[in-house]
Amino acid sequence: MTKPLAPGATIGILGGGQLGRMLSVAASRLGFQTHIFEPGANPPAGHVAARVTTAPYEDLAALRAFAESVDVITYEFENVPTASLDALEAIRPIRPNRRALAISQDRIPEKDFLTSLGLATAPYARVTDAASLEAAIAQIGLPAILKTTRLGYDGKGQARIMVPEDAPAALAAMGGAEAVLEGFVDFRFEASVIAARGLDGSVACYDPGENVHREGILHTTTIPARLTPSQRTDAVLLAARILNALDYVGVMGVELFVTDRGLIVNEIAPRVHNSGHWTQAGCAVDQFEQHIRAIAGWPLGDGGRHADVVMENLIGDDVARVPELARDRNTQIHLYGKAEVKAGRKMGHVNRVIRGIA
Amino acid sequence: MTKPLAPGATIGILGGGQLGRMLSVAASRLGFQTHIFEPGANPPAGHVAARVTTAPYEDLAALRAFAESVDVITYEFENVPTASLDALEAIRPIRPNRRALAISQDRIPEKDFLTSLGLATAPYARVTDAASLEAAIAQIGLPAILKTTRLGYDGKGQARIMVPEDAPAALAAMGGAEAVLEGFVDFRFEASVIAARGLDGSVACYDPGENVHREGILHTTTIPARLTPSQRTDAVLLAARILNALDYVGVMGVELFVTDRGLIVNEIAPRVHNSGHWTQAGCAVDQFEQHIRAIAGWPLGDGGRHADVVMENLIGDDVARVPELARDRNTQIHLYGKAEVKAGRKMGHVNRVIRGIA
Repeated sequence: MTKPLAPGATIGILGGGQLGRMLSVAASRLGFQTHIFEPGANPPAGHVAARVTTAPYEDLAALRAFAESVDVITYEFENVPTASLDALEAIRPIRPNRRALAISQDRIPEKDFLTSLGLATAPYARVTDAASLEAAIAQIGLPAILKTTRLGYDGKGQARIMVPEDAPAALAAMGGAEAVLEGFVDFRFEASVIAARGLDGSVACYDPGENVHREGILHTTTIPARLTPSQRTDAVLLAARILNALDYVGVMGVELFVTDRGLIVNEIAPRVHNSGHWTQAGCAVDQFEQHIRAIAGWPLGDGGRHADVVMENLIGDDVARVPELARDRNTQIHLYGKAEVKAGRKMGHVNRVIRGIA
Repeated sequence: MTKPLAPGATIGILGGGQLGRMLSVAASRLGFQTHIFEPGANPPAGHVAARVTTAPYEDLAALRAFAESVDVITYEFENVPTASLDALEAIRPIRPNRRALAISQDRIPEKDFLTSLGLATAPYARVTDAASLEAAIAQIGLPAILKTTRLGYDGKGQARIMVPEDAPAALAAMGGAEAVLEGFVDFRFEASVIAARGLDGSVACYDPGENVHREGILHTTTIPARLTPSQRTDAVLLAARILNALDYVGVMGVELFVTDRGLIVNEIAPRVHNSGHWTQAGCAVDQFEQHIRAIAGWPLGDGGRHADVVMENLIGDDVARVPELARDRNTQIHLYGKAEVKAGRKMGHVNRVIRGIA
């Protein structure tokens, strides 16, 4: 157990997007300063940070100077090169740890790990070429979905295979990258658990949310999810099992398929998660502060909430609805300060407080 | 009615303390960037702002450059020199307006203004020397309190006069500054209304809070205050009368004495107010965002709340309690990033969510 970081310390954040931005604000509430490392110019997180380094993730000299200037390193972006992480970790601790990062960077080790814990996942098989795809289809059946093993997010790098004739196009869509074929899961809905584990090993989970996607991107998260009491318990226990097995420190998003035969783990994200944004309106300690507390060695918030909330993402042109949304009673607006509106780009979100709860 | 500021615009804030810091964070939630103008080095607001100018309030060139770089100017600090405000206002709008600032900078015009609206204040009389103090005591009676008319805050620049023999020392404590003698008000407790008025003239008030002071500094604000329904209505109506009379735009703190014979206005502050910090935990739109919405010409939040909250200031060494407070369930911590702990210095605050309400 390391000593807790004292207010005034500096937290380094790899990635300057909206998650880094909201982490930076949460860090400020606890009296910390932040230093953002981000390749792109004018990052959203830079508007609310004490310091920004603009450099590629491959610039080892810039990374070393960044690490020297901070007390602990965390990230909102999972695909930092291994050599860069090595350089950083030689200087300051990286939390969550490298193992969590490595596992979640590749869908196959991720599913192997989850399976090794006795958790249910969709059936899956590795695909590198037409022959292994044919074998995978034979093993798993159709319909199924082919996904690149790395660098996929928000529905990118995915292709559905409904009938065998779809296979060649799906394979071509992978662009030569290693892929995994996943069987379709017949689920009632998707839920997610935002779980946190502290430096002392304590675990706290927020009440699971129910997620609705549109075009592969999260659209809404509704709290509470329509889970039975035993599903709720299962969700929390399986999340804790994942975090403990990884000796994890920080917040993790665990996406679940809720089926008639129990919970199936879809994927894990070793960071604050879009489906946890509702905590900003419903909890004394939100997921961003929870993450900062964890990596700073502070006690975790208990995950309690005092409101039912619906979070809705503002994607692309949705942001034009802000003047109207600003008139909604009990609606909390969060815009990310992105200069350019693009189709499919997350521009902000709103949290609607449905009711306070005792 | 001016056009609402679009996300991406820059808000200039005079003063880089904790109020500027929390205004800056609120502005970021609406997609705005902030530029802080502050004489002191390493201001708390600078940790969460896109840009900081470090210069004295008398540096007209720096003020002009600051004004040119922003779209609208607001402030957390009320005592900016008149010539500086003139220079700023020639370039960009200042909200809240100059009249509100001028009135609240001086206790005598403030009380004259409140009286002209038909609102009750403590009895008061101007004091410039021993003779006028003697006359004031004869008019108002004792006990009474002598206050400098300008630059007083958190109990500074005040001296009690319990018996006539206290008068010379009290006058000496004013250090030659113009003063006002105020009669003691026999009040049950102090309450405050955090009120806002938009560019379109709409007014929204939060539920009044009940304030407890220690050594002249706000200690706790409890929501709801122990007001009768008619007192609650009176509080909101008198706040609206003040804002409308000033053609005010922004958030104002209105401090009230609650007496058996009605509400008496203690003082007004033309800015976000310490007794409104509870809104961060109890409302979808907190006072900081409400202020930014007002000065940006956006619709106001309706002031609704979904929780009962107790706010407690962390003054000086109180900040050493943070590790223990971080273990409290439903306690939201806000630290201001001040490098040095000093007796009487506001280092942070906590908001305890007592219960959610429907």
